[in-house]
Amino acid sequence: MAGGKRVTVVGSGNWGSAIAKIIGSNVTKFDQFQDEVKMWVFEEMVEGKKLTEIINTTHVNVKYLPDHKLPENVVAVPDLVEAAKDADILVFVVPHQFLHRTLKTLEGKVKPDVIGLSLIKGFHLKPEGGIELLSHIIEDILKIKCSVLMGANLAPEVAAEKFCETTIGCRSPGNEQMLKDLIQTSYFRVMVVSDANAVELCGALKNIVACGAGFVDGLGYGNNTKAAVIRLGLMEMIKFAEVFYPGSLLATFFESCGVADLTTTCYGGRNRRISEAFVKTGKTIEVLEKEMLNGQCAQGPETAREVYVMLEREKSLEKFPLFVAIHRICIGELPPTGMIDCIREHPEHL
Amino acid sequence: MAGGKRVTVVGSGNWGSAIAKIIGSNVTKFDQFQDEVKMWVFEEMVEGKKLTEIINTTHVNVKYLPDHKLPENVVAVPDLVEAAKDADILVFVVPHQFLHRTLKTLEGKVKPDVIGLSLIKGFHLKPEGGIELLSHIIEDILKIKCSVLMGANLAPEVAAEKFCETTIGCRSPGNEQMLKDLIQTSYFRVMVVSDANAVELCGALKNIVACGAGFVDGLGYGNNTKAAVIRLGLMEMIKFAEVFYPGSLLATFFESCGVADLTTTCYGGRNRRISEAFVKTGKTIEVLEKEMLNGQCAQGPETAREVYVMLEREKSLEKFPLFVAIHRICIGELPPTGMIDCIREHPEHL
Repeated sequence: MAGGKRVTVVGSGNWGSAIAKIIGSNVTKFDQFQDEVKMWVFEEMVEGKKLTEIINTTHVNVKYLPDHKLPENVVAVPDLVEAAKDADILVFVVPHQFLHRTLKTLEGKVKPDVIGLSLIKGFHLKPEGGIELLSHIIEDILKIKCSVLMGANLAPEVAAEKFCETTIGCRSPGNEQMLKDLIQTSYFRVMVVSDANAVELCGALKNIVACGAGFVDGLGYGNNTKAAVIRLGLMEMIKFAEVFYPGSLLATFFESCGVADLTTTCYGGRNRRISEAFVKTGKTIEVLEKEMLNGQCAQGPETAREVYVMLEREKSLEKFPLFVAIHRICIGELPPTGMIDCIREHPEHL
Repeated sequence: MAGGKRVTVVGSGNWGSAIAKIIGSNVTKFDQFQDEVKMWVFEEMVEGKKLTEIINTTHVNVKYLPDHKLPENVVAVPDLVEAAKDADILVFVVPHQFLHRTLKTLEGKVKPDVIGLSLIKGFHLKPEGGIELLSHIIEDILKIKCSVLMGANLAPEVAAEKFCETTIGCRSPGNEQMLKDLIQTSYFRVMVVSDANAVELCGALKNIVACGAGFVDGLGYGNNTKAAVIRLGLMEMIKFAEVFYPGSLLATFFESCGVADLTTTCYGGRNRRISEAFVKTGKTIEVLEKEMLNGQCAQGPETAREVYVMLEREKSLEKFPLFVAIHRICIGELPPTGMIDCIREHPEHL
């Protein structure tokens, strides 16, 4: 429809492609959206052809989501500014480490009233030692409002249309229903809350807890201990929100972004897996990332370090004994067996 | 100490023996307790000897907790009334189905100011169709106050002194610290809350949710769907508390009795296992209980039935679509593949 909002997906990895599949299908159902969805694709050559051309002719992202067809109204665009400049809604789903560069390219080149939605998990570490939510980086650089979407959403399962839930933390009041219309399907159920900070915190902090769960698995401490570590991790996530993002709501942690994503990550997930291997093999995290993740970063150890630096600076280490222990284990300063002693007298037990 | 409270553990299965091991050790550390702990043991013959005599000479419950020694101050008593009549604190840990008979034997024969603590999970189904918390049955028949203890506490792991947490829901105001002193150790961490109804509800309702998690596993629907089912199950647990036990607190569901016990049960646990097999084999729950649990009841399907009867009577079926679907699947009225359709338009998604 001529009067509808234009949507651009910034990113085309497996999660980006899976969400583009949903958005491409949803926009055609509502007058409030334009039918064409642009997807910014970092151009690469695949068997001698440009990835954007492959996507635009076959409607398959052969590199990152080979088993699923994208709707034909999703158009791959290799130029980032070209993809984003006319958009009314920008969905950010690039890898964490490319976000800053992406934003710098877009700075000053997007519509002033564009609505952002970030699906990226992690923190930005400020040079002076504090941490910043990624959506706040997006807001600061592009001078826009940016909501977030987080949940127990493994991309291949979403693409395969397996039933699941997700949480949107909305920072554009009045646009809750519009964002829900954009994302929700019969198999991908959306809850919208206003507590965007807590939603985003969950997505980043859960990876730290998953390392703790992996250590328990590696040590063979059993189900009870694992449950206790996950629960204390959740309580530290809640405390972190309370202390550093006042106004966060307890109820948000019951959403898909909270308990659901946390437990899935602690029972499956690569942070759990790499941390279990860390205990069993005695190799460093870096070596295991190379061996098990093709050199990709597991995120949990990195996030634990960022949080540690911040907590130290804020003189709050003693309020977060589990986060602290996990960081110290990851960098080899504490043996994995030391984790439990660090949480025996947890503030939650007083 | 002459002036201290006498403690009796009513029950001696693996959970009863594990908790007697803890209590036996703790009472000697505080003047507020008598050093001797009586443990009522349902008398049976083991290799030609009485179980109570074996326990009182070897200090091992060879039948139900063979790998761990009980403290010598734990004394096995075959006569229930004898074991309980002088007690100031009664810890109930008999199998659910024996509780009523146990209470009838004790009726009118315990001290009037005795403090009860129930570790038993499940509901009592009233003849007229409602359900009753087991601790309320204890309170009604014995005319005492009964607190509850629930958590992610697999008995063999507790007995092996693996680190874990538990939750006491205290109904004897002023005795919180005393109950904590009785139960807490360096590896078994106790949080005391006043919201006993919610604590006990968690212990019973989680088994229904575990059946749903098992169906997802049996159907091969993956991690996202399982996370969604567990989360919606948790939300129905909270809603159940809200509707039928007003005054229950959201925070209680973050305790060990809540998210921790729920997730452990949904990833491990026999209800999950039997429900997975139910989908994969097409056999009935009864047959699977015989084959996989030596005829023991899995509890989840039974609790689902009790809750269904109550919800139907209260005209509240539509508020709890997951609980209802799980019951209907267990009795063969709905195919397991029907579960997801029942929760696509869950009240939580509106």
